[in-house]
Amino acid sequence: METKAQVLYDFTAEPGNNELSVREGETVTITNQNIGGGWIEAKNSRGEVGLVPEDYIEIKQAQPFTSGGNAAPLDLSFFDSHTPAPASTAQVDVAQPETPVTPVTPGLSSTSPDETSNGNDPWAVFDNNASGGFSNNWAAQPEGTETGKTSSDAWHSGGHGHPQAYQGPGAEDDEWDEEWDDVKSSGGYAESEAGEGGAINRGGAHGSSMKIALNKFPGFSKSGPELYLLSKQPAKGTKLPVYGGEVGAVWAYPDYQLDCVVADPKKGSKMYGLKSYIEYQVTPTTTNKPVNHRYKHFDWLYERLLDKFGSAIPIPSLPDKQVTGRFEEEFIKMRMERLQGWMTRMCRHPVISSSDVFQLFLSYKDEKDWKTGKRKAEKDETVGVMIFSTIEPEGLPDLDLVEVEQKCELFNRFTRAMDDGVKDLLTIGNEHWKRCTGPLPKEYQRIGKAFQNLSSVFTSSGYEGEATLTDALTAAGKTYEDIAQMVAEQPKKDLHFLMETNNEYKGLLGCFPDTIGVHKAAIEKVKEADKLVATGKITTSEKIIMSKRASTMSHALQAEMNHFHSNRIYDYNRVMQQYLEQQVKFYEMIAEKLRHAHSQFTTM
Amino acid sequence: METKAQVLYDFTAEPGNNELSVREGETVTITNQNIGGGWIEAKNSRGEVGLVPEDYIEIKQAQPFTSGGNAAPLDLSFFDSHTPAPASTAQVDVAQPETPVTPVTPGLSSTSPDETSNGNDPWAVFDNNASGGFSNNWAAQPEGTETGKTSSDAWHSGGHGHPQAYQGPGAEDDEWDEEWDDVKSSGGYAESEAGEGGAINRGGAHGSSMKIALNKFPGFSKSGPELYLLSKQPAKGTKLPVYGGEVGAVWAYPDYQLDCVVADPKKGSKMYGLKSYIEYQVTPTTTNKPVNHRYKHFDWLYERLLDKFGSAIPIPSLPDKQVTGRFEEEFIKMRMERLQGWMTRMCRHPVISSSDVFQLFLSYKDEKDWKTGKRKAEKDETVGVMIFSTIEPEGLPDLDLVEVEQKCELFNRFTRAMDDGVKDLLTIGNEHWKRCTGPLPKEYQRIGKAFQNLSSVFTSSGYEGEATLTDALTAAGKTYEDIAQMVAEQPKKDLHFLMETNNEYKGLLGCFPDTIGVHKAAIEKVKEADKLVATGKITTSEKIIMSKRASTMSHALQAEMNHFHSNRIYDYNRVMQQYLEQQVKFYEMIAEKLRHAHSQFTTM
Repeated sequence: METKAQVLYDFTAEPGNNELSVREGETVTITNQNIGGGWIEAKNSRGEVGLVPEDYIEIKQAQPFTSGGNAAPLDLSFFDSHTPAPASTAQVDVAQPETPVTPVTPGLSSTSPDETSNGNDPWAVFDNNASGGFSNNWAAQPEGTETGKTSSDAWHSGGHGHPQAYQGPGAEDDEWDEEWDDVKSSGGYAESEAGEGGAINRGGAHGSSMKIALNKFPGFSKSGPELYLLSKQPAKGTKLPVYGGEVGAVWAYPDYQLDCVVADPKKGSKMYGLKSYIEYQVTPTTTNKPVNHRYKHFDWLYERLLDKFGSAIPIPSLPDKQVTGRFEEEFIKMRMERLQGWMTRMCRHPVISSSDVFQLFLSYKDEKDWKTGKRKAEKDETVGVMIFSTIEPEGLPDLDLVEVEQKCELFNRFTRAMDDGVKDLLTIGNEHWKRCTGPLPKEYQRIGKAFQNLSSVFTSSGYEGEATLTDALTAAGKTYEDIAQMVAEQPKKDLHFLMETNNEYKGLLGCFPDTIGVHKAAIEKVKEADKLVATGKITTSEKIIMSKRASTMSHALQAEMNHFHSNRIYDYNRVMQQYLEQQVKFYEMIAEKLRHAHSQFTTM
Repeated sequence: METKAQVLYDFTAEPGNNELSVREGETVTITNQNIGGGWIEAKNSRGEVGLVPEDYIEIKQAQPFTSGGNAAPLDLSFFDSHTPAPASTAQVDVAQPETPVTPVTPGLSSTSPDETSNGNDPWAVFDNNASGGFSNNWAAQPEGTETGKTSSDAWHSGGHGHPQAYQGPGAEDDEWDEEWDDVKSSGGYAESEAGEGGAINRGGAHGSSMKIALNKFPGFSKSGPELYLLSKQPAKGTKLPVYGGEVGAVWAYPDYQLDCVVADPKKGSKMYGLKSYIEYQVTPTTTNKPVNHRYKHFDWLYERLLDKFGSAIPIPSLPDKQVTGRFEEEFIKMRMERLQGWMTRMCRHPVISSSDVFQLFLSYKDEKDWKTGKRKAEKDETVGVMIFSTIEPEGLPDLDLVEVEQKCELFNRFTRAMDDGVKDLLTIGNEHWKRCTGPLPKEYQRIGKAFQNLSSVFTSSGYEGEATLTDALTAAGKTYEDIAQMVAEQPKKDLHFLMETNNEYKGLLGCFPDTIGVHKAAIEKVKEADKLVATGKITTSEKIIMSKRASTMSHALQAEMNHFHSNRIYDYNRVMQQYLEQQVKFYEMIAEKLRHAHSQFTTM
């Protein structure tokens, strides 16, 4: 059967890439729908055949409409009066005249690249919506401004000058776009290439925060916390108990701490070598069975985790996708290291590590099992704020609204202050990195050369018996050249880890405004409850339920904060130990080298 | 008796300084000739009384004309045809319309400040005179260009906007101008004050080279080496033996190495506190009896040594005169240190340290003895090239002209190459100094502050049991602040001595072109000897004497080079030891501090 498709956007073929240029409104015939990688082979009216991005065309067979999430339809219209809907224009990508027709995904949608125009600034939504009392100064500092690019931007700045052909979740095809592995972006690392001495600029890496999906739909309130606060549905999915620990509410921690190793990046290719990608080996310590995943698999996992847990747990973004021509080796190594860091953090989280979707990612029996699991995860209805319905505080008292609000404010203040502190350290570290790899070693090198030069002048004196001096001077000169090299290489040995850890925390902290925003919004809703009761919009028992559920949310947030704090204490102790240990070694080695150089001079 | 004086130059009185403004051509009456310090009290035609610089007026009593130096009149006119006399305009100071009337000093005159317009560039004379074959590339780089000021310039840039009232040698009055201690200049240190972080800029200090006096007289040749080469006079003064050592010709070294300590700078004042000066205590290790000297006394000694030994021995300039308002303490300390360095170098020289004038400086019995010695030194006739007449090679073979020329070339090449090397090191050291006292400690300070800031954010978390981390982070932060301070203070502990030593050598090396120039000129004269014999200008035996005397000069130069080399080897061994020892201590201390900071973190 011949399948027709309508072209949604202009697409200009890359020469030599088997691509087909198409114009908006044009009708093409699908010649091969099984190309994969987000591409479809199509034939135009002139009989020319080539690949077009799947997202650029609308196939004239209706996709099944997947409903879900809003399983308990609820009249929430009374909230609408309080919520101007600034996100109603969110789907209009400034680069595109028309809103793409994408299938409605269940619950809180993940951010597809076509929707990120409003996603650059995670705080903006909260500034505009009615969740009041949330004075968001952070909004003035959108994430990623250091590099002038957010990771979302990076996805849009692909080499092809058009939005990447991204296959959104819920579509039938299980294939991915391998372009994801190869696209060039100008975020994070990219800046470093222009920097001095090939230094890797890390200030702006991990530029993106969690992309919580509250801003994805016109009419924000429909996906707001009231969905959970007033839900009449019984909770679906695994229960998430919260216990009273020494420090207050804590998650249930497993006896065995899951971990995994990301290693052995391998280049693979598809479509007769036309498209290539990098595959990483992920080995969980539980099974010790390696599974292979490409970056976009990680990204799929990220999107699932964000959908499911994002309202309760900050899900840090993946390391940015970016490739450099010259430093490809280095880039792959760095991305692997960051994927490792991300995976380690996910493994460490008791809720995430035990979730079905995370376990699916770590275990790969066969393609069928994987596809089934994938489809199941994408159909999960307990996403967005509904995650709170699975949370069960055990032996914890109900908190009144004042307590809930106080805690929320405390977390907000702390994460904000830490965000400032971490960014400050990153800025300073970045400058120090530049100095250590740029002017400082150059200076030591020049000092070394000056000593050696003086030594060779002395050798030309014709005066007998100064070989000891000239040899010693040469050795001292070489020592300073060695020191120059040590200085230049040192940041990779110490500052690197300090920067990476702080970058990770910057990413994590960037998620808190979203998470805390959900709580603030819930608090506002509960505050309105009395009025709603008075006007007969809700019953008194519904009001009591709302209050109790806000308390549950607060316990969950407290558990998450406690998880964050204990990890933070461990991480900063560890990274400072690592940093200082390497610093000590560095200075000791310099002292040792200089001691040796010193011993060669004599005034006897 | 009323003494009248004619005003030679305009002088504008400084308000509040008891000075009297006078105009060129005006006649004043001397009211007190015993003011001292280069000042004379005078009364103008309007009856106003005040101080005027002694040099600005011509007292209408003839000074006795001191003859000397050319004690053995010799017809050297046959050389004149070869020597255009470029120095005939040397006495015209560009800033002054008329040549000041100064008494002719014996032999080769010292450079008085009024005569230094041509003295800024020690190479210039050799470029212009007939000593041919002396291709002086150095002339393109006059000393002191780094700071844009030579020391001679500095003497002219006094705060009063007129040439300093300098009392030339040979005048009756034994007093000195105390302005010398207080004058501000813009050379050397002065530049440093504008520099970053109060760093002391040392690149340009010791800007001046030896001011050998060949350019002081119209008709250069009359004071050229032929004065000695053809002298018929018996040598006067102490004989200076040169022996054959292991490394060739060497000076006679005393059994006891003289040394002295320059210490205890004290502020003194004169003229009812109107003029103040600094007095330094100089204590020779021989007598252990301290004598007090002001800067200008050192300068007097310098001029005497230059007159007497400058043709054979490079006499490094004194440290520049310069004062800063804010750093006066530091300046006095630095000048003392440099005077110490200069005195030590003079003490170490067997010829200089044993000379009458140097011994006079180190011993002060009473004012009468000092005055007598001073007058005697100023009347010394064995100055300039005549010093070679006192040199007696013992057991050394006569060198032929080819050997003499080869040696001279070798010394020239070596000193020139070392001059380049030393200047290079100074430039680099200066940059390193700036970095170590400017941006580097600032960066460590910021790192320290960032850690401490993070620590105080962590303290605000409300999470129990992170005091160990926050205390450790604070300690680590303070450690980096300590390191910042150490880094900033380190150059004074190590780089300082490396810079000072190289500065000293820069000064010494700057004297060699003059010293070597005398030898080159002598070689040229001997080369002309055959022609002079042929034309009957000199006899064959005179030609033989000339050749023998050139050999003596060469032995003296070799002795001086050997002295230079052995000192250089000692000095550079010592300074490198000092430098590296301090560097080792520095890095060890940092490592130790960081080790302590490291021990406070824990991941248990």
